[in-house]
Amino acid sequence: MSLVLYDTLHREKVPFVPRDEGRATIYVCGPTVQADPHVGHGRGTVLFDVLRRYLRFRGYTVTFVTNVTDIDDKIILKARREDVAPAVIATRYTRLWNRTMEALGVEAPDVQPLATGHLLEMHALIARLIEQDKAYEVDGDVFFRVRSFEGYGKLSRRQIDDMQQGDDVVDADRKEDPLDFALWKTAKPGEPAWPSPWGEGRPGWHIECSAMSVKHLGHGFDIHGGGLDLAFPHHENEIAQHEAAHGDTFARTWVHHGMVRFGEEKMSKSIGNVVSLEDAVKVWGQGALRLWYLSAQHRTPLTFETIRLKDAAAVHQRFTTFLRSARRAARDADADTTVAEPFLAAFTAAMDDDLNIPVAIATLHDLVSSGNERLAAAEAGKADARAEVAGLADALVTIGDDVLGLALVPELDAAARLEAQLAPLVGLMLEQRQAARADRDFWVADQIRDRLANAGIVVEDRPEGPRWYLAPVTVDDEPET
Amino acid sequence: MSLVLYDTLHREKVPFVPRDEGRATIYVCGPTVQADPHVGHGRGTVLFDVLRRYLRFRGYTVTFVTNVTDIDDKIILKARREDVAPAVIATRYTRLWNRTMEALGVEAPDVQPLATGHLLEMHALIARLIEQDKAYEVDGDVFFRVRSFEGYGKLSRRQIDDMQQGDDVVDADRKEDPLDFALWKTAKPGEPAWPSPWGEGRPGWHIECSAMSVKHLGHGFDIHGGGLDLAFPHHENEIAQHEAAHGDTFARTWVHHGMVRFGEEKMSKSIGNVVSLEDAVKVWGQGALRLWYLSAQHRTPLTFETIRLKDAAAVHQRFTTFLRSARRAARDADADTTVAEPFLAAFTAAMDDDLNIPVAIATLHDLVSSGNERLAAAEAGKADARAEVAGLADALVTIGDDVLGLALVPELDAAARLEAQLAPLVGLMLEQRQAARADRDFWVADQIRDRLANAGIVVEDRPEGPRWYLAPVTVDDEPET
Repeated sequence: MSLVLYDTLHREKVPFVPRDEGRATIYVCGPTVQADPHVGHGRGTVLFDVLRRYLRFRGYTVTFVTNVTDIDDKIILKARREDVAPAVIATRYTRLWNRTMEALGVEAPDVQPLATGHLLEMHALIARLIEQDKAYEVDGDVFFRVRSFEGYGKLSRRQIDDMQQGDDVVDADRKEDPLDFALWKTAKPGEPAWPSPWGEGRPGWHIECSAMSVKHLGHGFDIHGGGLDLAFPHHENEIAQHEAAHGDTFARTWVHHGMVRFGEEKMSKSIGNVVSLEDAVKVWGQGALRLWYLSAQHRTPLTFETIRLKDAAAVHQRFTTFLRSARRAARDADADTTVAEPFLAAFTAAMDDDLNIPVAIATLHDLVSSGNERLAAAEAGKADARAEVAGLADALVTIGDDVLGLALVPELDAAARLEAQLAPLVGLMLEQRQAARADRDFWVADQIRDRLANAGIVVEDRPEGPRWYLAPVTVDDEPET
Repeated sequence: MSLVLYDTLHREKVPFVPRDEGRATIYVCGPTVQADPHVGHGRGTVLFDVLRRYLRFRGYTVTFVTNVTDIDDKIILKARREDVAPAVIATRYTRLWNRTMEALGVEAPDVQPLATGHLLEMHALIARLIEQDKAYEVDGDVFFRVRSFEGYGKLSRRQIDDMQQGDDVVDADRKEDPLDFALWKTAKPGEPAWPSPWGEGRPGWHIECSAMSVKHLGHGFDIHGGGLDLAFPHHENEIAQHEAAHGDTFARTWVHHGMVRFGEEKMSKSIGNVVSLEDAVKVWGQGALRLWYLSAQHRTPLTFETIRLKDAAAVHQRFTTFLRSARRAARDADADTTVAEPFLAAFTAAMDDDLNIPVAIATLHDLVSSGNERLAAAEAGKADARAEVAGLADALVTIGDDVLGLALVPELDAAARLEAQLAPLVGLMLEQRQAARADRDFWVADQIRDRLANAGIVVEDRPEGPRWYLAPVTVDDEPET
């Protein structure tokens, strides 16, 4: 068994066979840094983060590159409105992007190239295209001659005469063909510009990804990722630029993800507050938010609705609740790893099948159900059950945290720190409750129970004495603000 | 009164008169990103962060630029050892630097230019120097002709015949003069290289700061900052490169800070653990660590010793303790702002005098002493005292948090959140303690007191009833690990 991925270029699932044995190389189109990241932006970053983590779990050394588009019309416009330099806008929103992705548990890329940091590489690629008559200069602009590249349209499977570049109508009178697109744009007054062999100007959007991916990953890297909305024209143009210039394969496999839809439901206050990705992480937490992103097959659309996020939060809670009980029950037990093997195998089989993450998560549910049964058996005194619980808990952490990034252990650890702080107080209160009950002073005993509940402390009475833990934080439909 | 700054170039205090009225422009040399930031790195970033915040407090619009040297011998060496690309090393340590500085409360720069992102700007500057015979090419290397620039040595006040460039002995046979330094270095096999008019290569270290500062701040920007260790040759060379090429002033004022020394004391475990800046912030906290950095005049050396950090932590605690009491006592009071004016004036006078931050912090102590007297008066029922306490507390937050970045309010807010969580439990325990005392059951009353103390809760008995708060976290000399 090995990993297969649906490849947009070939319109079928293809086995993942990396260019260099044991090493995987991934490039994903990153943000244009000019606004706060919103909930839609997390889907792709989480998907490719999981792909990267899964490839590492499968034994590959992964190099993950994702760019920042730090010069662009929108950045210039925003800078003008704020009366600051475009570099100030780009710096601010790059920071915010990185901080938000870190809060979402997305691992930092190995390389995060900036467009403005790769102008020489773009110049070289453009010059090569001009040399081969695949591009032409018109008064300081350089355009790609689309019909000169035979493979044009192979990614998006569009007929060449049905295509439009979209944003390039402004140059209609300067281009040989409406289909041609800009590689280099001549400087307009007041806009940032850099010297080039074709005069002062700035790069077109598409050229940066062709130049930066190959600079950092080499020709024919393994996986190019991005949203389905980028397949045409951006990715089509990336292929054309590289392959027309070099005659070899640009990227071996293309993985695209579907978009986030905002549901039909009346926009509730809680949703209204969390369309910002930074806020969404604060409200829902890294783990629940990632579970929601991962709840649909990655090419299908995903709807942002409170009910689905609550469901994801409940799933996260189920997993952490099991882990918490397992820690308590299986402390010091040697983990029995064989018990987890079928679950790890099922998880791997689902992931290997084009990252079927919803099915992979179902495996985690099965693991937790099995773990809960063994927890009960352990409490009933069954000899091997504690070791089995420990084995299942370890596997849950490996899959849930290492591969899916669900932050199960960090959340438990944060709760454990608070519990340690509360322990002396709660211990005394429970002693006093016992004393009150022994005195048949039920009013005091009830008072103590109510105060504990107000403090978010759940008490379970057990034959061996009371047990307590912090109630999981729940998110209301309509939080008071 | 206006701000004066000691200017290394003129060896005297000079009034701060910005190039553009109402706008201040600052460039500070940033890190070469190839290792974990250590405690020494925080001194300069905190100093210039305070300068930036203070200029804003004084009404200036500030543009703050600090670079990242992302290509360099050390980065290449580290990359080779790890068998990764230099860009991977640079990306990793840039992230770590930014995350650590954020934890230290250092505001993100407005622009954070990368050396590899400004090669075209460096090429233009080098070409200009060659045109004017201030630089020369030798087989793909380009050197600055030091003796062609009359002002060479004016920053460091060294005699030209006594100077050495240090790291450039390797090129001794290629340079016209041992004093000349590299602007562009020809590619060596296996090293990263970029095209240039002089062949493939990479920039010298000094050229990047001349190019990037002026690109983002313009000619003759206001303040160039950095460590005293950079004054020669780095800053001397920055001046020479710009001024030889353009004939105008590079930077108007030069502010340098002294180094951090590691004390003579036996390196204790706690210090051993916190030489990493990231760890130091975790152990001591943003506020105490900044108070330590700011405890010495900025040009003098500063010694890293446990006793000094404990002292800074005690100062921070004094400030937060006053604020906490003020919040409680002056809730809903209209702040009397006049009472804070003398303290704000004294603070401003100290800061205006070449950022005399130790004296400025002494002002805060005076403010807090005065605040504590008024707190006592308020408790004794004096009518105006609550408004005065509120006014002093507001001024403490403005100076302490907005200007010095001491995180007084965030620390109080974090404690307040925990206190809210504990309140129902603690309230009940205190009621039970009262009941036990009323029953003269002192064993139970003592038990309750001890449990509360174990949970870090300090109870103060007051005529109006008990008051409680979380004890400030203290740092041990030798934490158990």
